[in-house]
Amino acid sequence: MSDLNNTVKHNSYFEGKVQSLGLDTEKGNATVGVMKKGTYQFSTSTIETITVVSGVMNIKLINGEWTKYTEQEKFEVPANSKFDIVCDRDAAYICYYA
Amino acid sequence: MSDLNNTVKHNSYFEGKVQSLGLDTEKGNATVGVMKKGTYQFSTSTIETITVVSGVMNIKLINGEWTKYTEQEKFEVPANSKFDIVCDRDAAYICYYA
Repeated sequence: MSDLNNTVKHNSYFEGKVQSLGLDTEKGNATVGVMKKGTYQFSTSTIETITVVSGVMNIKLINGEWTKYTEQEKFEVPANSKFDIVCDRDAAYICYYA
Repeated sequence: MSDLNNTVKHNSYFEGKVQSLGLDTEKGNATVGVMKKGTYQFSTSTIETITVVSGVMNIKLINGEWTKYTEQEKFEVPANSKFDIVCDRDAAYICYYA
């Protein structure tokens, strides 16, 4: 019998243009993911702290300004909010959920 | 018609205990991935430069000693080689292929 708790959880969004892999960390649940070039909007249920792992992510929080984040830079999104992302090419990130 | 080149490439190894997502970067092809707790051996075809994104990875290169790598630490594996990995809990990484 397969042990599903022992496999990495894989999620796919936006017809496969954004995909993520889940992990448990000392800082709680997290995902690492990749986004292809494109424009995306995500909703949050918890606070999300996102660090760019590779590439560039242009981010706009609600009522915020567009801000560019590059490798190792991070931003925080409030719970029960939305944010827009524009990627001009592939980007990778890690997201921690609080 | 779906545009497969526009979707993230997802790979699964070791019955889903290791999974990765591909991306193109300014430094060439890369993958981000997650490993569940376990012991793994991988083979390389090109030089691989791996940076730990979350957690801890215990690595043994051929003829090398076991070495512990933590977040932001990286190691390089020669082309056409093998290396062993032990993860005591979930770990995430980014791997660049040269």
